Amino acid sequence: MSLATATRASCLADESGQEAPYLLTPGPLTTSATTKAAMLRDWGSWDGDFNRLTAEIRERLLAMVGAPRDTYACVPLQGSGTFAVEAALATAIDRRGKALVLANGAYGQRAARILDVLGRAHVVHDKGDYLPPRGEEVAERLDADPEITDVFLVHCETSSGILNPLAEIAEVVKARGKGLIVDAMSSFGAVPLATETVPFDVMVSSANKCLEGVPGFGFVILRQDLLAASAGRAHSLSLDLLEQWCYMERTGQWRFTPPTHVVAAFHTALAEHRAEGGVAGRLARYTRNRDRLVTGMRELGFATLLEDRWLSPIITTFFSPGHPAFEFGRFYAELKARGFVIYPGKLTQAESFRIGCIGRLDESVIARLLDAVREALAAMGVDDCRPAA
Amino acid sequence: MSLATATRASCLADESGQEAPYLLTPGPLTTSATTKAAMLRDWGSWDGDFNRLTAEIRERLLAMVGAPRDTYACVPLQGSGTFAVEAALATAIDRRGKALVLANGAYGQRAARILDVLGRAHVVHDKGDYLPPRGEEVAERLDADPEITDVFLVHCETSSGILNPLAEIAEVVKARGKGLIVDAMSSFGAVPLATETVPFDVMVSSANKCLEGVPGFGFVILRQDLLAASAGRAHSLSLDLLEQWCYMERTGQWRFTPPTHVVAAFHTALAEHRAEGGVAGRLARYTRNRDRLVTGMRELGFATLLEDRWLSPIITTFFSPGHPAFEFGRFYAELKARGFVIYPGKLTQAESFRIGCIGRLDESVIARLLDAVREALAAMGVDDCRPAA
Repeated sequence: MSLATATRASCLADESGQEAPYLLTPGPLTTSATTKAAMLRDWGSWDGDFNRLTAEIRERLLAMVGAPRDTYACVPLQGSGTFAVEAALATAIDRRGKALVLANGAYGQRAARILDVLGRAHVVHDKGDYLPPRGEEVAERLDADPEITDVFLVHCETSSGILNPLAEIAEVVKARGKGLIVDAMSSFGAVPLATETVPFDVMVSSANKCLEGVPGFGFVILRQDLLAASAGRAHSLSLDLLEQWCYMERTGQWRFTPPTHVVAAFHTALAEHRAEGGVAGRLARYTRNRDRLVTGMRELGFATLLEDRWLSPIITTFFSPGHPAFEFGRFYAELKARGFVIYPGKLTQAESFRIGCIGRLDESVIARLLDAVREALAAMGVDDCRPAA
Repeated sequence: MSLATATRASCLADESGQEAPYLLTPGPLTTSATTKAAMLRDWGSWDGDFNRLTAEIRERLLAMVGAPRDTYACVPLQGSGTFAVEAALATAIDRRGKALVLANGAYGQRAARILDVLGRAHVVHDKGDYLPPRGEEVAERLDADPEITDVFLVHCETSSGILNPLAEIAEVVKARGKGLIVDAMSSFGAVPLATETVPFDVMVSSANKCLEGVPGFGFVILRQDLLAASAGRAHSLSLDLLEQWCYMERTGQWRFTPPTHVVAAFHTALAEHRAEGGVAGRLARYTRNRDRLVTGMRELGFATLLEDRWLSPIITTFFSPGHPAFEFGRFYAELKARGFVIYPGKLTQAESFRIGCIGRLDESVIARLLDAVREALAAMGVDDCRPAA
């Protein structure tokens, strides 16, 4: 089959209504048709055409945080976002260092798990399922334990959907001269982050979150002097950020085979991010999505886990209704049949589910989702959405 | 832009002759239009539809080597093929074990490099740029050093294009009760490999080689008892094959975000592999490509690095002409302008270049390539293709 025939067949399938459901999840998410169409070409990973894509992506990402090109580096890495987090931790934390991991969900816990495997000293400041770590607590921990060299924080913890108070934590961390490692996986590109206002040392994110690419690689933006000082720290050849960076700087190529199609899609996704007004434009759309979602769900009787001040524009956790006819599996299936994929909850104490606001979707999609939720509840015979007492 | 419009625009671009060049490289390579079109949908990585793709892929890969489902496991892993090799080495070789690495090119050397980083004991049997390691040499090494527990071999070493004598090496390794780890990255799916005839313990390959998927993940097929015995061996959370396997067996999902679009493309690529007659069908086409290529290039005066008996149906190394007007960069550009991307050589002693035979291409493409080579040489003023003396 020719490319033309194949893609036309795919167009027809879509026009006949067999569309894939909207992904209202923390990623992978619904991407634009043009971003996906950028994958309809094969690229030589050694070729100059592809190297140009890589160079433009790296430059654009640095520009997005206002990072000076001579003091910060952008290092893309194959694999999921966790691969990039692991590489970043191994690079940033000296083998004789000690990390303070701020945890309030699965991704903080995962960072601690990585440090366990790497055998790097660390302590965890655990706030449970959804409470935010605050600046003053971090200050206390740092003042009480001078051995701590670095602090790790998840910007938006999608386990609950909380947007953690990065600025106030950055302030106390930097005031004490400690390293700051930010997991901005699910916030980068939609929640403002600039080296000038939040002087992070290391930031990690990935292609398939707010930048609306497809999954396949992550990237780390970090201080060049820190990167240079990390020689010999890596525990892995594949996850060695310094070697990845040096090779890329020298040759323009990825050190090992990159996910070429995913990279090409990301290049298109970045152009669309820019066209939408960059971080500010994306934040505005996601915030409208979130506001419409939260308002509509509350009108239906649902309660959010978090107070409004902690709600991120990324994903929101709702308590499951206490009504005996509510069952998550059925709710999921009813919504999927209506064209929407949502996400299970991750709380240890209460039944919940999550709905994302990110990806190529707007308020009109959220409005249709709310209709679908209403229909799903009616089909299940759930007429009261208040959480269990 | 709707999906229909975007893909139609892309169809038009292709029909107007702006086709991407053929990739005559060891991968990423030219894939079918249908395989690429499979990436035009977004998938929820938690959703049942996607889990079915993963399950079918894993089953098909095990079936391809005739591996019994109760004794072997198939574990896909995000990242490039090297990530999977690193994970396989960390899993297969006990921390108190010792590996014999058979090297005759970059990929054997890279395995030794990985073992250096992991701090696992190993010795390298290095045959230089292109000579094959033979069974009797391996027997000698093993008999002389009883501490060796495992042998690592690259099946097709694309540095030269050699197809190493796997069967004779497997025989001496298994006769001595040692572990056998095969890097079948660039041979799997086109060169026969079956657990019945080559009782390997661990085999590594990736999506974007002879199975003609796009790059983004690799996979390891290995003995389940060995995998189970590897608890605690992994040096990395992301590259922990046992955890990846346990999670997949339990949930049907990948442990961390998979490259969903790449996985969907691979699912289509596997169906096309089957439709072509599986390994036998693919081997036949690649062999025809290779024979047409080698014959045609020799007619033009080029010499191959290897004797015919060692030529793989994957990629062939040719010596660069000794003619003073020949310059690889120019040759590359001339061929690319005519629609073909080739690969630089990797020999340490002599100037060379490589041309691949794999990917979605047949003899008619090779015939057009040979025309393009003829034109490129004429444009460069090279009228004698014999290598330098």
